[in-house]
Amino acid sequence: MRMVDLIIKKRQGHELTDEEIRFWIKGYVDGEIPDYQSSAMQMAIVFQGMNNREIATLTDAMLHSGEVLNLSNIKGVKVDKHSTGGVGDKTSLVLGPMVAACGATLAKMSGRGLGHTGGTLDKLESIPGVTIAISGERFVNQVNDIGCAIVGQTGSLVPADKKMYALRDVTGTVESIPLIASSVMSKKLASGSDVILLDVTVGEGAFMKNVAQARQLAHIMVDIGRRLGRDARAVLSNMSEPLGLAVGNSLEVKEAIAALQGHGPEDLMELCYITGSIMLEQAKVFSSREKARIALEDAVKSGAAFDKFVKMVKAQGGDIEYILHPEKFEMAKEIIPIYADATGYIKSLDALTIGVSSMKLGGGRETLDDVIDMSAGIVLNKKVGDQVKEGDLLATLYTNKPKDIYEPIALDVLHTFQITSEYVEHQKVILEVIE
Amino acid sequence: MRMVDLIIKKRQGHELTDEEIRFWIKGYVDGEIPDYQSSAMQMAIVFQGMNNREIATLTDAMLHSGEVLNLSNIKGVKVDKHSTGGVGDKTSLVLGPMVAACGATLAKMSGRGLGHTGGTLDKLESIPGVTIAISGERFVNQVNDIGCAIVGQTGSLVPADKKMYALRDVTGTVESIPLIASSVMSKKLASGSDVILLDVTVGEGAFMKNVAQARQLAHIMVDIGRRLGRDARAVLSNMSEPLGLAVGNSLEVKEAIAALQGHGPEDLMELCYITGSIMLEQAKVFSSREKARIALEDAVKSGAAFDKFVKMVKAQGGDIEYILHPEKFEMAKEIIPIYADATGYIKSLDALTIGVSSMKLGGGRETLDDVIDMSAGIVLNKKVGDQVKEGDLLATLYTNKPKDIYEPIALDVLHTFQITSEYVEHQKVILEVIE
Repeated sequence: MRMVDLIIKKRQGHELTDEEIRFWIKGYVDGEIPDYQSSAMQMAIVFQGMNNREIATLTDAMLHSGEVLNLSNIKGVKVDKHSTGGVGDKTSLVLGPMVAACGATLAKMSGRGLGHTGGTLDKLESIPGVTIAISGERFVNQVNDIGCAIVGQTGSLVPADKKMYALRDVTGTVESIPLIASSVMSKKLASGSDVILLDVTVGEGAFMKNVAQARQLAHIMVDIGRRLGRDARAVLSNMSEPLGLAVGNSLEVKEAIAALQGHGPEDLMELCYITGSIMLEQAKVFSSREKARIALEDAVKSGAAFDKFVKMVKAQGGDIEYILHPEKFEMAKEIIPIYADATGYIKSLDALTIGVSSMKLGGGRETLDDVIDMSAGIVLNKKVGDQVKEGDLLATLYTNKPKDIYEPIALDVLHTFQITSEYVEHQKVILEVIE
Repeated sequence: MRMVDLIIKKRQGHELTDEEIRFWIKGYVDGEIPDYQSSAMQMAIVFQGMNNREIATLTDAMLHSGEVLNLSNIKGVKVDKHSTGGVGDKTSLVLGPMVAACGATLAKMSGRGLGHTGGTLDKLESIPGVTIAISGERFVNQVNDIGCAIVGQTGSLVPADKKMYALRDVTGTVESIPLIASSVMSKKLASGSDVILLDVTVGEGAFMKNVAQARQLAHIMVDIGRRLGRDARAVLSNMSEPLGLAVGNSLEVKEAIAALQGHGPEDLMELCYITGSIMLEQAKVFSSREKARIALEDAVKSGAAFDKFVKMVKAQGGDIEYILHPEKFEMAKEIIPIYADATGYIKSLDALTIGVSSMKLGGGRETLDDVIDMSAGIVLNKKVGDQVKEGDLLATLYTNKPKDIYEPIALDVLHTFQITSEYVEHQKVILEVIE
């Protein structure tokens, strides 16, 4: 078998056999197939696509390229949740403790933020003392004791994805549904959970710019799960505006704490209740989503969900004084309010602009080497559908950068709030459920 | 400027600016842009194409990546001829001396054969003593003295093409009209001739499988010439059956000698007369193609064309006894006649099968490291449109390989002659002239 023949086959729009796909991935990870052949294959896949059988085989070949976690020492049904990325997406911090409080176990490997999208690990690390690098044994013990843990991915998991993603990033082949689906699912499947809930974000702030694309990606990932013997489901969630009100690491942790105490923004609460009830039904903890939702709401009201979060932070070395007294989080030096320059309804509020602005204020990374300012970010005061009067507070910027840097950013944030005199509805957070 | 952004731009179907194309080629030749980015770009070009302005700029950037020959020390208008490759294509050996005998000068850099296509350099080297590696000064002197020389391309010419072609070969990106056109034209333009005649072969034995593709390639190459200030013209020639009757190195040299003496197969003679008369008109040696054709026919009849060939072989160190007495060429040990198994007309005779069979008999290279058996090959006795009776000689194989190797090849050759009871016309050798 020669790699060049497989590239030509895919370039001409033919299906690759399972054996051919495994030959490529094994050869690439072993270093026998060079980067330049893999990049040509990836570009051919961008144009010609893959069918579901090919994508499932690709995922399987990638997931077996390294260590596959064995979570059999963890009691009960292990649930996992993955978002395709967004702005203000602190869902995992809220959802993990909520489902744990209802009897499921969440053993989650999470990622870091890059560009305009944030990462759960960075958010967790904004809590002083928290470590996300914990050993396999400690991870298992923590999940058995508390019901949830959110940690970094170990180095030996899915080396094929690390190598392929790095190559896609520099060869213009990131935007490909088969390559995105296999990348996400190989990591989720290698992490060993029994059931997986995928949150496919849709909009300018997300990978998938429209519902049709997002639906296609969601269906493919659910199908990969089915073909490889796992119960995977998906929701499509709105990322045309940010999720919740806070964007930026410690700002988002504070919002997550509020949500766990029942005071979170409506869209964040709704997303957590809907995805949480699907996960609890998948894990067979409840026989219906309705019952699961009641249990989740009770866990919030009773303080049980918040208690799980406190325990998780403590188990991972964090200083829980910050969780119990969120006002202890260090504030940024510069606090810049943005006021409405018109009266009417908020028509749109671009998640991408808010994400990039938060990054530039210090809240995110432009490259992997950048250091994040945990206190920097943006808190929104208004969202799409809200009524405003000229002079109302739209948002507040938090930064330690000088004026010549934050002033143009403040203008960008002001301009992304489009105000119209006509009535505008609030946006739905969950667009579809795919199963 | 970042290469990944240029790859994405092309992947999305946008035009690259001249500056962007030059950035890619310079960076790639200098080693600053890695193979894996160039291969992704080439694959994006396979799918999205390039417009004529982009292809001309790409050609110009490639041709200036290394030495550009200065042929100003050669008197008169320098003409060059290039074929996109075929089976039994010994045209350059005949055409060079013919146009030189009529007053044009042919200063030609040629190539070697690979796979089922032969190369002019290999054919020339089957004449004992001939060298194709001659210095620049000797090259200029030979062309000034005799009017023609056919030599190997110097190493410093168009390094971009060498690097890009090697990469295309292993990444499944050979079949792309913009990449083929820029590869051919960058080499032709760097070789310094004033006018260029392109022979774009069409059919199963050629790069271009159909007339529409070949016409597109021809138009683009003629346009590149125009944009970069050279008079380029093209013919589309038939390569669904081999050209002439002989396939294989010394077998083709013998046929070239016969052609120079006026006894060549009709299709070969016609191709040389038509392309030669276009070249002589391009070089302004004659005011019309009709006059040029008469001169070419006279040069063959008078022996002037054959005399130029003898002088060229002698100047390049060859033993002219072989040219004057072609029966001196060493014969292969095994001579296998192939007889018709039916009566009727030859309907088709696949050039690709004949080319591959000749290669397997020892007459060609499967990889660049293979050594060619100069005596091996195939001589056809019948071509498409010829009438045959069962038992008539269709072809003869020449080889030094053992029976277990040549027997299946003999069957392949027999089966490629499709015989029908209905009348079949002879094929036209020149399908179109593009200018």
